[in-house]
Amino acid sequence: MTSFEPLRVPVAPDDAAAFGFAPCEGGVCAAAGVRAAGVSAGFRKNPNRLDLALVVADEPCVAAATFTTNRFCAAPVTVSRAHVADGHARAIVLNSGNANAATGEPGLAAARAACDAVAAELGCDADDVLVASTGVIGVLLDTAPYAAGVPAAVAALSADAAGAHDAACAVMTTDTHPKEVALAGRVPDGRGGEVTVHVGGFVKGSGMIQPNMATMLAVLATDAPLTAEAAAAALRAAVGESFNKVTVDSDTSTNDSCFLLATGAAGGERIGCDSPAYPAVVGALRAACSELARQIAADGEGATKLVTVTVMGAASDADADTVARAIANSPLVKTAIFGHDANWGRVAMAAGKCGVAFDQERVDIDLLGVPVCRAGLTVPMDEDDMLRRFDEPEVAITVDLHAGDACTRVWTCDLTHDYVTINGDYRT
Amino acid sequence: MTSFEPLRVPVAPDDAAAFGFAPCEGGVCAAAGVRAAGVSAGFRKNPNRLDLALVVADEPCVAAATFTTNRFCAAPVTVSRAHVADGHARAIVLNSGNANAATGEPGLAAARAACDAVAAELGCDADDVLVASTGVIGVLLDTAPYAAGVPAAVAALSADAAGAHDAACAVMTTDTHPKEVALAGRVPDGRGGEVTVHVGGFVKGSGMIQPNMATMLAVLATDAPLTAEAAAAALRAAVGESFNKVTVDSDTSTNDSCFLLATGAAGGERIGCDSPAYPAVVGALRAACSELARQIAADGEGATKLVTVTVMGAASDADADTVARAIANSPLVKTAIFGHDANWGRVAMAAGKCGVAFDQERVDIDLLGVPVCRAGLTVPMDEDDMLRRFDEPEVAITVDLHAGDACTRVWTCDLTHDYVTINGDYRT
Repeated sequence: MTSFEPLRVPVAPDDAAAFGFAPCEGGVCAAAGVRAAGVSAGFRKNPNRLDLALVVADEPCVAAATFTTNRFCAAPVTVSRAHVADGHARAIVLNSGNANAATGEPGLAAARAACDAVAAELGCDADDVLVASTGVIGVLLDTAPYAAGVPAAVAALSADAAGAHDAACAVMTTDTHPKEVALAGRVPDGRGGEVTVHVGGFVKGSGMIQPNMATMLAVLATDAPLTAEAAAAALRAAVGESFNKVTVDSDTSTNDSCFLLATGAAGGERIGCDSPAYPAVVGALRAACSELARQIAADGEGATKLVTVTVMGAASDADADTVARAIANSPLVKTAIFGHDANWGRVAMAAGKCGVAFDQERVDIDLLGVPVCRAGLTVPMDEDDMLRRFDEPEVAITVDLHAGDACTRVWTCDLTHDYVTINGDYRT
Repeated sequence: MTSFEPLRVPVAPDDAAAFGFAPCEGGVCAAAGVRAAGVSAGFRKNPNRLDLALVVADEPCVAAATFTTNRFCAAPVTVSRAHVADGHARAIVLNSGNANAATGEPGLAAARAACDAVAAELGCDADDVLVASTGVIGVLLDTAPYAAGVPAAVAALSADAAGAHDAACAVMTTDTHPKEVALAGRVPDGRGGEVTVHVGGFVKGSGMIQPNMATMLAVLATDAPLTAEAAAAALRAAVGESFNKVTVDSDTSTNDSCFLLATGAAGGERIGCDSPAYPAVVGALRAACSELARQIAADGEGATKLVTVTVMGAASDADADTVARAIANSPLVKTAIFGHDANWGRVAMAAGKCGVAFDQERVDIDLLGVPVCRAGLTVPMDEDDMLRRFDEPEVAITVDLHAGDACTRVWTCDLTHDYVTINGDYRT
C-alpha cells in the first residue's frame, strides 16, 4: 500500500551476545559467592506472600548503588546511601508491604534497625548492610517482623536458583510475576587467560515507574572481580541506558534503589575501568539491566503491551530523551495502543508538545514497523494489516525528527482499564 | 482527630464580583454587536450533530488571539495567526470532526478556503476571518461542507442566547455538554460616567488538554471598546491564569486557539492598557476564562471530579507551576481520587519527582480541606470523614512547600475507566 521503507533504527541492541555472554540459570545467585532467600516475615497482611528478601555475599565485597532523585526520598534510601559510600557491603535486606517513606526520624531508625538485625545474624558491621523497602508511603514501618524474619531468612539462604527466585518474589507488590535475569560469559583474566563471570539479578516494579537513577528496587550481583570504582562506573553506565529508559506512568518513586554486589569469586586480576575485561562486564551488566527494564515495562500495572519508543534524528541526546518520554508518557498515545488504534496523530502531538525544536514538515513516523507519516504527512495504511500487527505482545513506535544525529529508545506500556482499577484503590 | 489548622490558600479567587461584574445571559452573544450560529455542515459522519460554528461581529473590530505552542501546529493556527496579526477581524469560523493538523500545504489551502467562503458570504476581506478546527489529526479536511454550510450558518446568525448556544455545541467533540459564560458589569466610560460592558464566550475541550498559550478552541467576545493593544494584553493576562492552568492529561493539542473579539458596541472612549476601565475588563475576562477553564476540567474525558491543586510556599512562580502540574498530571494521584482514596503519599511523591527544590521535612499537605501531612509526616485522619468528603463534586489538594512565597493553582480531573474507554478507540 505504501512505497516508503520502514525507518532503520540506529540504536545498538542490548545484546549480551555481542560481548560473548549468554543466558544461564540462577538469577542473582548465578554470581558465585552470592546466596539469597525470601521469607514471609509479616510485613504484609497476607501470610502466604513472601515479604522479606535477603541477598548475602560470602564475604564483604565491592558494592555500588544508584538511588531515586525524588525529593521525598525514603528512609532506607538515606541509610543505604551512607552505607554504600565506602564501596563495600556484605548484604542487602529488602521488604515489601511498606515503603518506609515520608516517615521522618522514626523511619530512619526503622531502616537502621533492619541493618542491625541482619548484621547481628551474619556477624558483620551494620554499615555493610544495605536496605530497601517498597509499598505504601507515609506509614511508619513496624520493625517487629525483623525479629523472627531475619534469622529465618539467614537460615534459608541458598546459593541456587530457588533462593534467588524466593528473593525476587519477596519484593513484589503489584508485579504479576517475579523478574529475574542471569548471564554468563568469558572475559580476559588479566593473566593472559580467560575466566567465566556471571551477572545475575532481580527487580521489582510495575507502577510509579519513571526512574531517574534506578528503578524501584533492583539487585544485581556479579562474580567479576570489579574494583569499587569500576563497579560504580559500570552500574552508572548500565542504569543510564536501561532502568532510566523505562516509564510506566511518569511517576518517579520515593524508593528507587539499584544495588550491585561484585564478589570477585570468579577469580582473575581485579578489573578496573581500563582493564581489557571491563567493556564486556559493562556490556553484560547493561544487557542484564535492560532485560529487567523491559520486564518492568511489559509488566507495567494493567499493561497488555510492551511499547518501545525510538526517537532518532534529534539535535541532542536530551532532545531525543524528552521527545521519547513525551510520547511514552502520553495518556492519549497509551490508550490508543490499548485500543489497537494506529493513531499516529497522537504520536505527532506528543512529540510536538514538549518544547523540543524540529520542523514538522520533516518528521517521519513508523508504527509497528509500518511507515504511517513521511515528511509530516499521512501515509495511507492498510488498517487490517495494522490490526493484525497489534496482536503481537510488543509495539514499536519510531520517530525520525531529522533535526540531528542523536537517538534514544524508551520502554513503556499501554494505559488500560486495569491500571485505573489497580490504582483506584491501592490502600484497601 | 487532628489539632492542625487547614492551610490557608492565598491565591486570589477568580471573582468577577470583585470587579463589579455579575453573570448574565447570552453566552458569546452577550457582547453587543456579536452574532453567532451553529449548523450541521457535514464535517462529522453524524448528520444530527452540529459541526460548523460561526461568530460574526457586525463590523470589522478589534481582535486578539493566543495559540498552541505545539510544534505540530495545525493549518488553521498558521492561517489565523497571520489573519489576526493586524489586531482586527470580522468573523471566526470553527469546525469539529477534523483538526486539519499534520496536513501540510493542502491543509493550509483548506483553512484559507474556509476563510474565503465566509468572506464571500459576509462581504469582507478573507484576512478578517479567523479559522479553527478540532477533531482527528492527520486527515485532510474536506472543504466541500463549506459550500452549503457557510451560507446556512450566515443565514442562521443570531444575536441571542440560542445562536451562542448552537455555536458552543458545534465545536464539541468528546465534550459531554457545551461550555459557555457571560458576565456584565459597569466600567468608567472615560467621559466621567459609566457604561455597561459584557464579556461572553464559549470553549470546547475535554481531552488532549494541557494548553500552553490557550485551550483547544475558545471564543470570547466583549463589547468593551478595547484598543487592539489592550485586547491583546488583556487576553494574554487572562489566559495565563485560566486556560493555561488547566490540564486533563498533560497532552497539549496541535490546535489550541483562543480568540477575543472586542466590538466596542458598549460605547464610551477607547480603553487602552492605562485607562481606568482596563483593570475591570481584564478582571472580567480572567473570570470568564477561569469559569470556562473550570468547566473544561470538570468535563475532562471520563472525569468524575473537578480537582483544584494549589501549591504555595514555592521559591518561584515557575516552581509552583511545576509542582502543581506534577501533582495534577500524576496518574497515581488521579486514579487515587477516582478511587476516593486519601493517599497523600502519592501527592508527596508527585511533588518530589519534578526536580523542584524543597525540604521534605517542612512540607504540609491538605486533602479535601483536611490536614493529612504536616512537616513531612503523616497526620492521623478520620477515614470515614474523608470518604464523605469525596462525595462532593470538587476535590481540593493543597500543598505548602515552605520554600518561598510563590503560589499557583491548577485545575484538573481524575483518571477513570471512562478516560481509557473514550481514548482507546477514538477513531472508530
